[in-house]
Amino acid sequence: MTSDKLQSISRFPVPSLDEMPEDIRARIEAVQEKSGFIPNVFLVLAHRPDEFRAFFAYHDALMEKPGNLTKAEREMIVVATSSANQCQYCVIAHGAILRVRAKNPLIADQVATNYRKAEITEKQKVMLDFAMKVSRQAEFVGEQDFELLKSNGFDEEDIWDIAGISAFFGLSNRMANVTNMVPNPEFYSIGR
Amino acid sequence: MTSDKLQSISRFPVPSLDEMPEDIRARIEAVQEKSGFIPNVFLVLAHRPDEFRAFFAYHDALMEKPGNLTKAEREMIVVATSSANQCQYCVIAHGAILRVRAKNPLIADQVATNYRKAEITEKQKVMLDFAMKVSRQAEFVGEQDFELLKSNGFDEEDIWDIAGISAFFGLSNRMANVTNMVPNPEFYSIGR
Amino acid sequence: MTSDKLQSISRFPVPSLDEMPEDIRARIEAVQEKSGFIPNVFLVLAHRPDEFRAFFAYHDALMEKPGNLTKAEREMIVVATSSANQCQYCVIAHGAILRVRAKNPLIADQVATNYRKAEITEKQKVMLDFAMKVSRQAEFVGEQDFELLKSNGFDEEDIWDIAGISAFFGLSNRMANVTNMVPNPEFYSIGR
Amino acid sequence: MTSDKLQSISRFPVPSLDEMPEDIRARIEAVQEKSGFIPNVFLVLAHRPDEFRAFFAYHDALMEKPGNLTKAEREMIVVATSSANQCQYCVIAHGAILRVRAKNPLIADQVATNYRKAEITEKQKVMLDFAMKVSRQAEFVGEQDFELLKSNGFDEEDIWDIAGISAFFGLSNRMANVTNMVPNPEFYSIGR
Amino acid sequence: MTSDKLQSISRFPVPSLDEMPEDIRARIEAVQEKSGFIPNVFLVLAHRPDEFRAFFAYHDALMEKPGNLTKAEREMIVVATSSANQCQYCVIAHGAILRVRAKNPLIADQVATNYRKAEITEKQKVMLDFAMKVSRQAEFVGEQDFELLKSNGFDEEDIWDIAGISAFFGLSNRMANVTNMVPNPEFYSIGR
Amino acid sequence: MTSDKLQSISRFPVPSLDEMPEDIRARIEAVQEKSGFIPNVFLVLAHRPDEFRAFFAYHDALMEKPGNLTKAEREMIVVATSSANQCQYCVIAHGAILRVRAKNPLIADQVATNYRKAEITEKQKVMLDFAMKVSRQAEFVGEQDFELLKSNGFDEEDIWDIAGISAFFGLSNRMANVTNMVPNPEFYSIGR
Repeated sequence: MTSDKLQSISRFPVPSLDEMPEDIRARIEAVQEKSGFIPNVFLVLAHRPDEFRAFFAYHDALMEKPGNLTKAEREMIVVATSSANQCQYCVIAHGAILRVRAKNPLIADQVATNYRKAEITEKQKVMLDFAMKVSRQAEFVGEQDFELLKSNGFDEEDIWDIAGISAFFGLSNRMANVTNMVPNPEFYSIGR
Repeated sequence: MTSDKLQSISRFPVPSLDEMPEDIRARIEAVQEKSGFIPNVFLVLAHRPDEFRAFFAYHDALMEKPGNLTKAEREMIVVATSSANQCQYCVIAHGAILRVRAKNPLIADQVATNYRKAEITEKQKVMLDFAMKVSRQAEFVGEQDFELLKSNGFDEEDIWDIAGISAFFGLSNRMANVTNMVPNPEFYSIGR
Repeated sequence: MTSDKLQSISRFPVPSLDEMPEDIRARIEAVQEKSGFIPNVFLVLAHRPDEFRAFFAYHDALMEKPGNLTKAEREMIVVATSSANQCQYCVIAHGAILRVRAKNPLIADQVATNYRKAEITEKQKVMLDFAMKVSRQAEFVGEQDFELLKSNGFDEEDIWDIAGISAFFGLSNRMANVTNMVPNPEFYSIGR
Repeated sequence: MTSDKLQSISRFPVPSLDEMPEDIRARIEAVQEKSGFIPNVFLVLAHRPDEFRAFFAYHDALMEKPGNLTKAEREMIVVATSSANQCQYCVIAHGAILRVRAKNPLIADQVATNYRKAEITEKQKVMLDFAMKVSRQAEFVGEQDFELLKSNGFDEEDIWDIAGISAFFGLSNRMANVTNMVPNPEFYSIGR
Repeated sequence: MTSDKLQSISRFPVPSLDEMPEDIRARIEAVQEKSGFIPNVFLVLAHRPDEFRAFFAYHDALMEKPGNLTKAEREMIVVATSSANQCQYCVIAHGAILRVRAKNPLIADQVATNYRKAEITEKQKVMLDFAMKVSRQAEFVGEQDFELLKSNGFDEEDIWDIAGISAFFGLSNRMANVTNMVPNPEFYSIGR
Repeated sequence: MTSDKLQSISRFPVPSLDEMPEDIRARIEAVQEKSGFIPNVFLVLAHRPDEFRAFFAYHDALMEKPGNLTKAEREMIVVATSSANQCQYCVIAHGAILRVRAKNPLIADQVATNYRKAEITEKQKVMLDFAMKVSRQAEFVGEQDFELLKSNGFDEEDIWDIAGISAFFGLSNRMANVTNMVPNPEFYSIGR
């Protein structure tokens, strides 16, 4: 059974929890327990269980892995590139996570509007310049980008991480824009 | 051990088969048996096993699933959007697959250069117009796009498929451009 | 005397209140009394008293005048066009005012990210489409735009208002980006 | 009373001189006496007296103020940025003023078409590069722009002037394009 | 012998008349006799005699041929597309020819700045819209363009003419920008 | 007599060989003898004999002339710029010629998709960067481009050649897109 209320968060049918495969329901319930609510991306993508599994496996492989980039920095990449892609869900949901990760109530709005003017380090701006280039014109990425990043203290694995996060959320932004994914009201005020 | 020869297909380290986790090696060997060679995308992405698994799970969920879009049509989407993203690996590798799927030696070059002039149906051009909009300006996708697609015979699930393939290969194109992924020479002549 | 602290809100010198001409200081003190703080745009532009006077006279002529557009709608125009211009000061300061005017804590982030997906009326989206056209490609504005607006219930004076607000904040966005005008921390949370 | 003839210079109603507030009529009559005709911008904007007053106050604050930029240089900024904005009124009217100020009958057409090829100094090209950046992509203005300008002999106040003129005429260009403001025939030949 | 004076009209060597092949000198002398001066395009392109001959043969085949488009309309196409390509030589030289052909001293500046606001017929604006599409995004030209043109009274041969002129002057604009071809001072005032 | 079959290679009438002027038929028969088939560009452009003659005279003046650029390099310029212009005929026909000239079956697909990643020399990439700048934004060509090319071993005549080929095929691309010129099937496999 698909409720009317749930459908309004997506252009596509949204399954109820008891319609979902067991593993997907379990993941969603775990998130709900931790966050106090179910972020709509879980419900919207559950329309396609195999894609749901791949999507979150990819997400976790990039966002939960160990590495030099802090969790706040990873969220900065999400917010900056999602803003350029005008993805309402990602900017608002990951804006909340960025505020929490960075323990800074102002940073998400700054990065979303114009990261070049945000109160972040010069190294972080170099990181976001590269994330934006991957997002908007990856065909021009070349040796000079790798050299600039390395001279700013990023190693090869960091570069893959930045590119991977930018590329993965490019996918996420497109699906959110096509499905008309609606951000949960909770996200707007978290971490402020 | 990472061989020099393998590294030249990527800016990043490329693991040898015996360095890879068992499941990844098994998948690659199965592909090699079927195709007669190992497409470089498998070797390049094996540098990151978790991302490799998610990437190919996502790929299969979109490209191997049942559905109304033919396999040739799915490859048309890949070739058209990858060409706009100037992704050498995806245009050349999926161009080969498109020629095979469509049993048409001319179609891939036509779709890559300007799909509006390709010898495909008007319905397929509508499909590719939408795939391109998802790829290049998903922020403008709205009700009028859904109506146009439906009036051309696509149903809601087809629309998700088109969007999903366009979005997923947008990710793939960006990773290929950043890693400098090199297409295998075999792809250039397959299906001609 | 120009304090170090004040200078950090602008790339240019920022006068102290007692350095300012009497009329400008009076206006600023009135704002401070009403708002509880001095929005930085007043301090940054006070570097040029004549331009300050013209700027706020223009602002008031558009934003305080009677007319069919509600005050919330005028702020929507400011937020949508300033976001396209990546103006941090205007998006954050006028986002706050929009939340207050619309009595809606969610609306500013929605309009800033992608107004096409915001929870506003279809008529308001038509208004913002036109405001964006004025902001980004006014050279293409023609009869068909006027007809569309009129068929959506806007009269000639409303159209001038929309255009005027979009054009005026285009000026404001450029000055804020060049001066590196910093939004006051207070704005981030007002109306949430 | 609004005459048909006057209306043809604007999409909006154009007041006759005796309908205008005293101060506006006085300003217009002073211009007419000096120029021998009334530039249409005065008549078109008189439709909104408060905006008219603010507009010309802003104009004078930038174009009549003392400063290092010559009057011809200020007009070069107007012509170059207005041409990029495809504003017929501003290119033609300020092209005339530029020819007069520079005492050079060829300069306006050169600056309007491609200022990079105009017969102006290298320093003036640096000035126009910055004016164009403010006009087209102010979000990218940063420290390196200030350094380049300073190393070419511009001081901080000159930079504000360039930015202010570019930003103000961006507003003017947008209003002229929306109102369909028609340049007076006199402007085409002045100074040739 | 190549004179210093002549070289200043091009980045490349400019031959003197007596260095030129007989047929090229004859053509140039005929133009000089008719116009009273030698338009610089003849001198600059004479650096490459074979290209010179092909260039002017192509020019004449489009601009001197019989056909439904008036000579003034052909020049409108040149001026509008050359302005979009920021070609100083072509806008200024063909602006002069347009004024003469149209017997209208104002038209060239209007078409160069924003042909959508020029005092030309609606049919001529449709013609220029198509010329601009050929010039800027010919890859999108399709049946709907042909239908629109035909419904506005253009036949198939007119469409080829519009496209040919737009395409040929695209070549001319690029060569003029690369050679830094300087317009003769005479052009600025002809026909005003 | 115009056959139906021939018309399908163009939106415009295509003359039969015996309808053509003698010199044009002779040239086409010579090409047919050499190539084994008649490339469609000859048939499509024969609709306009004078333009045909000028077109191929210009073509030969650039592509057959002696000079430092190898024939393969000239074809690289054609393929890279025609791909950016999305010209199906030119990419496919000149891709075949490039494979033959370079004796390399892989090079055309690489240059068409993203020449920055093609297996060509650094010097050839500098050449293509300039050809692309001439093709896409010739208005920005300036001294620094000439200096870069010269420091990479190109002389003044080479620079003219690169610009000329880029500009000429820009014309060709536009005519092919407007006429809907269809590449001969033979081209797809030549040189693979």
